[in-house]
Amino acid sequence: METSINQLESVGTNSTFVNPEELLTHWQGHRRVTRRVIEAFPEDKLFSYSLGGMRPFSVLAMEMVGMADPGMTGVVTRKWEAPSHLRKIEMPKTKAELLRRWDEVTEYIDANWPLIPAGRFQEVDKAFGMWEGTMAWIILYFIDNEIHHRGQGYVYLRSLGIEPPPFWDRS
Amino acid sequence: METSINQLESVGTNSTFVNPEELLTHWQGHRRVTRRVIEAFPEDKLFSYSLGGMRPFSVLAMEMVGMADPGMTGVVTRKWEAPSHLRKIEMPKTKAELLRRWDEVTEYIDANWPLIPAGRFQEVDKAFGMWEGTMAWIILYFIDNEIHHRGQGYVYLRSLGIEPPPFWDRS
Repeated sequence: METSINQLESVGTNSTFVNPEELLTHWQGHRRVTRRVIEAFPEDKLFSYSLGGMRPFSVLAMEMVGMADPGMTGVVTRKWEAPSHLRKIEMPKTKAELLRRWDEVTEYIDANWPLIPAGRFQEVDKAFGMWEGTMAWIILYFIDNEIHHRGQGYVYLRSLGIEPPPFWDRS
Repeated sequence: METSINQLESVGTNSTFVNPEELLTHWQGHRRVTRRVIEAFPEDKLFSYSLGGMRPFSVLAMEMVGMADPGMTGVVTRKWEAPSHLRKIEMPKTKAELLRRWDEVTEYIDANWPLIPAGRFQEVDKAFGMWEGTMAWIILYFIDNEIHHRGQGYVYLRSLGIEPPPFWDRS
């Protein structure tokens, strides 16, 4: 990572791949798709159904919540608490409760994004006191982890005979 | 998207989220994980096994190949051919053949990345003559699509009783 940062100046006018606003739009677009995947599950299956001994989609969704929420705090404040899938958190008991929690995190991300200190995306820090990398790297990890587990939710839905929301529609 | 680009100057020293080298490293890291997922499938299951009426992992992997390969050509040259999942392409018949194809694309991406014209990531173009957006947007789409379908491959593997490669290890 450090090498890449040092090479920044050598790439001339291609020195930005995406800017922070584009990345926020990108992340929130993915979060809208994931929200629709949560909604697509029948209430009981959301909390009980899985394949191959994996976790139900409610637990996967709460892992996303538990990364994004304290993750944003850490990126903004440089103070990290353990990600919530590694500590005791309250699991929502209904789909409506999970969606409310999801929407809170959506607002939290939007509200905190402009507070990220200048230069912070390229700063190396130990996320959650455990994983070292630039803050851009850890945010991409949150997003990738969400896409990864949501893709698994698509298989759960398909195997239940339910058509998942289109992957490409981020509106 | 255009609005975001116009806002570029207002975000000061946070004006870059990631630079092109970091993004290439990120993409190739994901491609290494996907390669290990291909390898993890038993030869026959790679071409035949699926869940919920979905496509076998070999077909999903070839969709990734069929986006990344002509996709890189389009980003570099501004000339697009149809993505290969929308036209007739030769399906590899063995895992070894699929992995060879995979490795060719890995090399093709590395070789072509430095040839991407200056400012091209922020340029709006109609990818494959069909999907309009910045070139950063379409490249993120290739990566996200790979993570999405690879996540599905993880469920296939788990349901076959096979431990998938760790998601977080991009080495």
